[in-house]
Amino acid sequence: MLLHLSTWAEVAQFLKRSRTIVVPIGSNEQHGPTGLLGTDWLCPEIIAREAEKTADILVAPTFNIGMAQHHLAFPGTISLRPSTFIAAIGDWIRSLAGHGFEKILFLNGHGGNIASIEAAFSEVYAEASFAGRRAGFAMKLCNWWDLEGVGELAREQFPTGHGSHATPSEIAITQWALPGSIKSADYTPQIAPTGPIREALEFRARYPDGRIGSDPAQASPDKGGELVKLAAQSLVRELAAFSDEAMPK
Amino acid sequence: MLLHLSTWAEVAQFLKRSRTIVVPIGSNEQHGPTGLLGTDWLCPEIIAREAEKTADILVAPTFNIGMAQHHLAFPGTISLRPSTFIAAIGDWIRSLAGHGFEKILFLNGHGGNIASIEAAFSEVYAEASFAGRRAGFAMKLCNWWDLEGVGELAREQFPTGHGSHATPSEIAITQWALPGSIKSADYTPQIAPTGPIREALEFRARYPDGRIGSDPAQASPDKGGELVKLAAQSLVRELAAFSDEAMPK
Amino acid sequence: MLLHLSTWAEVAQFLKRSRTIVVPIGSNEQHGPTGLLGTDWLCPEIIAREAEKTADILVAPTFNIGMAQHHLAFPGTISLRPSTFIAAIGDWIRSLAGHGFEKILFLNGHGGNIASIEAAFSEVYAEASFAGRRAGFAMKLCNWWDLEGVGELAREQFPTGHGSHATPSEIAITQWALPGSIKSADYTPQIAPTGPIREALEFRARYPDGRIGSDPAQASPDKGGELVKLAAQSLVRELAAFSDEAMPK
Amino acid sequence: MLLHLSTWAEVAQFLKRSRTIVVPIGSNEQHGPTGLLGTDWLCPEIIAREAEKTADILVAPTFNIGMAQHHLAFPGTISLRPSTFIAAIGDWIRSLAGHGFEKILFLNGHGGNIASIEAAFSEVYAEASFAGRRAGFAMKLCNWWDLEGVGELAREQFPTGHGSHATPSEIAITQWALPGSIKSADYTPQIAPTGPIREALEFRARYPDGRIGSDPAQASPDKGGELVKLAAQSLVRELAAFSDEAMPK
Amino acid sequence: MLLHLSTWAEVAQFLKRSRTIVVPIGSNEQHGPTGLLGTDWLCPEIIAREAEKTADILVAPTFNIGMAQHHLAFPGTISLRPSTFIAAIGDWIRSLAGHGFEKILFLNGHGGNIASIEAAFSEVYAEASFAGRRAGFAMKLCNWWDLEGVGELAREQFPTGHGSHATPSEIAITQWALPGSIKSADYTPQIAPTGPIREALEFRARYPDGRIGSDPAQASPDKGGELVKLAAQSLVRELAAFSDEAMPK
Amino acid sequence: MLLHLSTWAEVAQFLKRSRTIVVPIGSNEQHGPTGLLGTDWLCPEIIAREAEKTADILVAPTFNIGMAQHHLAFPGTISLRPSTFIAAIGDWIRSLAGHGFEKILFLNGHGGNIASIEAAFSEVYAEASFAGRRAGFAMKLCNWWDLEGVGELAREQFPTGHGSHATPSEIAITQWALPGSIKSADYTPQIAPTGPIREALEFRARYPDGRIGSDPAQASPDKGGELVKLAAQSLVRELAAFSDEAMPK
Repeated sequence: MLLHLSTWAEVAQFLKRSRTIVVPIGSNEQHGPTGLLGTDWLCPEIIAREAEKTADILVAPTFNIGMAQHHLAFPGTISLRPSTFIAAIGDWIRSLAGHGFEKILFLNGHGGNIASIEAAFSEVYAEASFAGRRAGFAMKLCNWWDLEGVGELAREQFPTGHGSHATPSEIAITQWALPGSIKSADYTPQIAPTGPIREALEFRARYPDGRIGSDPAQASPDKGGELVKLAAQSLVRELAAFSDEAMPK
Repeated sequence: MLLHLSTWAEVAQFLKRSRTIVVPIGSNEQHGPTGLLGTDWLCPEIIAREAEKTADILVAPTFNIGMAQHHLAFPGTISLRPSTFIAAIGDWIRSLAGHGFEKILFLNGHGGNIASIEAAFSEVYAEASFAGRRAGFAMKLCNWWDLEGVGELAREQFPTGHGSHATPSEIAITQWALPGSIKSADYTPQIAPTGPIREALEFRARYPDGRIGSDPAQASPDKGGELVKLAAQSLVRELAAFSDEAMPK
Repeated sequence: MLLHLSTWAEVAQFLKRSRTIVVPIGSNEQHGPTGLLGTDWLCPEIIAREAEKTADILVAPTFNIGMAQHHLAFPGTISLRPSTFIAAIGDWIRSLAGHGFEKILFLNGHGGNIASIEAAFSEVYAEASFAGRRAGFAMKLCNWWDLEGVGELAREQFPTGHGSHATPSEIAITQWALPGSIKSADYTPQIAPTGPIREALEFRARYPDGRIGSDPAQASPDKGGELVKLAAQSLVRELAAFSDEAMPK
Repeated sequence: MLLHLSTWAEVAQFLKRSRTIVVPIGSNEQHGPTGLLGTDWLCPEIIAREAEKTADILVAPTFNIGMAQHHLAFPGTISLRPSTFIAAIGDWIRSLAGHGFEKILFLNGHGGNIASIEAAFSEVYAEASFAGRRAGFAMKLCNWWDLEGVGELAREQFPTGHGSHATPSEIAITQWALPGSIKSADYTPQIAPTGPIREALEFRARYPDGRIGSDPAQASPDKGGELVKLAAQSLVRELAAFSDEAMPK
Repeated sequence: MLLHLSTWAEVAQFLKRSRTIVVPIGSNEQHGPTGLLGTDWLCPEIIAREAEKTADILVAPTFNIGMAQHHLAFPGTISLRPSTFIAAIGDWIRSLAGHGFEKILFLNGHGGNIASIEAAFSEVYAEASFAGRRAGFAMKLCNWWDLEGVGELAREQFPTGHGSHATPSEIAITQWALPGSIKSADYTPQIAPTGPIREALEFRARYPDGRIGSDPAQASPDKGGELVKLAAQSLVRELAAFSDEAMPK
Repeated sequence: MLLHLSTWAEVAQFLKRSRTIVVPIGSNEQHGPTGLLGTDWLCPEIIAREAEKTADILVAPTFNIGMAQHHLAFPGTISLRPSTFIAAIGDWIRSLAGHGFEKILFLNGHGGNIASIEAAFSEVYAEASFAGRRAGFAMKLCNWWDLEGVGELAREQFPTGHGSHATPSEIAITQWALPGSIKSADYTPQIAPTGPIREALEFRARYPDGRIGSDPAQASPDKGGELVKLAAQSLVRELAAFSDEAMPK
């Protein structure tokens, strides 16, 4: 069930059978010469919606702009500051928890989001902790590449040149889902350099075409389809386990 | 051109021929017994993407969560506080202006967003004003129902019972674009009451099924299609006029 | 009854007979060659205090600095950023609501304040909405020129050259109330240009003497007196209606 | 020269002969059984405007709501939180400094404001300090009772029962300026108790009628007039000295 | 008892016999040619730990970074902005109050902290005041040089050249406690100039070696020891009096 | 060189030979029945100061209060919210970078700090990224247990029951450095349970004595000494490598 294509009454019904929701969350940022700017929010959206076809889960709208300050020197990147991102995630959580959702899983598509998402969870939990009361709900962060089996499959598909940004696995996923938007380019060097991530202009100086450690030429729609199918299955199990987890009294 | 399906290099190319971008912005909130929770962000997204099919315009990802505090008593609504919303809009603008966009048009789908969006514009302009420097870029807020001719068409289609929330015009648009998600219900009363908008529980007490002044039963995919076609044409003209507007030295 | 000239015990007494208060709110900003910097906060203060002479209403101190970032390139303008303004309005409301005021009407004198004031109301309501409780009080924004009959009278008095900033109507009001502070100047052009409002330096480039669309030479103390008298009567009715409005359980 | 009764062009002229401005700042809060709620902003306003009659000084609009959280249990008190107050003072300063004012003197009427005003000054200075640049302007906080000779006169007028809140000196000043708003009541005890100041309900428990250490019955319009005259003279000298103070290169 | 060297169970035990805690708070900032950067947080830490040797008091970890924006032009200074400082002090207080501490005494070592600490107290109290509830706990600010008898002793030890920054008394205290870190330098002039404190670069222009009004050459470990012993005794009494102070119902 | 025991002139000298500084950062929070509340800030302080004895490095004061909202149900814990923590870390960084430090290494002692510290780095970098300029300095987060070889040694020392909170390794370090503060208790169960970390009351319900997965009884001063010695050596190498790292033009 996709929340944005449902009515409030349908969500009220869903809440009678489940208190769990998944929020795809990513970033809109450069992904090298051939990666789509939307890659990092498209991937978790694609996976979550694929999972939704096979199970009675509820998928929230996609949180599509994340923490991508380091990509701002490349046109098309849109970023929130961490403080803004944390405030916004908090308001999403407070809205959903107010409706009675007790397990909120963020399916994340961008490594640069992780710290801010975790900080946002703590910011929300802190409201309960400082007030000396129970929150009554729990959040979980799950990167799609950490879903059970997915990392293994990606390493098998791309034993070299996977890298950490504009990776063949994420590009393969968008190729599978959006075959009309497959781009091509020559990569020089074939495998991009690696190194630290700091502010935007330093980033662009280190990584002139935007990739980090990756060879996206290895991506293919088929490989993307394999990843999506596996990730979707694992997500359904992950949600079930999270739903079933008891919170201590 | 859809920004999220483009590469950074394609956006860099676009910036050589235009400095204008349109950002669909809305809200995810209850829309009565039959309106989709995503209605207010789907409508501007649908219109902007329709326009993009006929003109060389650049459409940003959709800003899908807005200021909907008054709808929070209905399940599925997700809202930012005004302060969070203003901060987030500001970061979107700063990101886009940093790439060289000089005209940023927000195509809005939610009346409750207007005050916060305008306040966000002023917050960003104030940075330049307090610093005693020119901003170098301009924002414009455009509600889709205010696009040239659109209000007239809606009034013609729905002379009574249009109302102001869960209106037949917005529901018709989603029916046209998402025919698989058309819902039906009995409306009691046929035309919903009207009144002021305050906090969420008062809102629900006033408007038990979520509608304000509307009779959504009048919506049809065909009427929605007419609205979208007209709105898309007007949007293209609006963007052209905004692009052409000279900023004084 | 003017709150600032009352004791706390007198306010406690007032609260036994009424839960309604009016807050004049405006801005301190340039008003063209002849308009007073205080025009926008003086007008609602003048009208509210005139109304107070004829009815048992309670007038709060005037909120005299608003959102005027676009006027900062003219000396004497003092502005809050929207975020600061929203925070401050919120604290005023929370203070007054804490005393038991249930209807708080802001009588506004500055168009540039509207978005931030509405956003501030939503920010305060959101506290209740996110907490799942009723607020127990309501705010209303009322621009003095929107009081019943006032716009009509102004259009009758100034059929051309009313404009939207440094208007003859607002200047007439200050002329009537502060006859010792009437200024004169030649206007070139007689009717100022119109256009969009953005940041301060662009504003000054567009509107070199600060006026927008107006010919303030038409102002006179007599016309101002007519406007004040009518506005004061309408305000009393507006407050009575707001007081009488029932809030749903 | 009163800024709010001037045009921007008149302020531009003033800036050619002086870079100094005085901002009356106070609070709107309970002042015991007979003190006006506006006492703390009326006193500096009265003194500054009296001074303005005798010297070419520029008086800003009055900052009338300050930090009075401890008085919130008495009806009519309006308070900003320190964080809001600091933000607002900062925006006033940034507005004025942007126009070229180099010496901004805040004439304060409320002891509870002192910490927040000083913190606000540091917040503004810190922008320059963190950026490694000179501010180019300076602020000074001056409580009216600390103006040269004023404390001595007050001690002479009220050797006992002056106290620290709802003092006979501040009430005398409002009696002199606003003879139509003189209130009377029996005081029990004649001299109010003293003690620490914490949150609002504790405050009201300690100081049931709102006074701290004072016997306002000693106030008279004549004594108020003496205080105002002396304070106005001292303020003129204070402003002259502040204007003349050289800032090191 | 030093909190950081205790277990949570030991603190739980302490709370059964006392609800009072002392928090040393200072700043890390330049202290002239010979003063340690840590002087302002070391002094209250030294005094509080000396007091702890003789009485059953609980000493919190030292809050070592304060509001020192004016010292930022000297290497080694670390400063929080007032707004950050206020937020952080608030979280310390909320943490401690949540455990049941009812009397929280901040033993301060830096004059520049005073305004922000007082503002922080008001910010925390305001939460209760705006909510219309009792806080249930109280804070007190105590500068070590204001402890009973300490100012007198310092004036006796250093009748001239005490000054207000990099004073011989504070340097003497660190000399006594940290004899391995005694520095020497020639002072020119022997007694530093005095004047106002504004932003960092102006500060350095006024006070080239960082001192204000002081002659630190007079400091000696012996004098420091005398000050510490006396301050520790006074602190114990101050804490006892604060503990014993009844809060009104 | 310990910054807090140095003068500003000594830091100015240091900056001529190095642009690198290490900031010990931790948390003050419960550490089970026998762990000190200060454990998480003491460990990095102990290691950094041990390293300082053998190499010409500069050690900042310890940032002793971190993000420990989940421990607030245990007395003695002091926590900042993530938003406060991020603001404070930012001001530390801005202060140090303003002095010319180009490499700022945070030696962290608390897992719960990681997300907020990384978010704080991004918040500071974002200022440069949004402004389109280079930052000119870099931050690195290094947990002491991740220093080269340290994790291996800990696993060797404590093959079972190391756990993740109140670990024998961290307790051993404080035992070695503070032999007068070694505590003992019976542990039931000997190895504590593991699980997720959420808000404070849930945490205490899951982990009644505060430990997670650990058996602190295995700690000994000797093992602590081995860890400190190895960590100090690794830290010196880590700082040297960070200093030597070139930043791209």
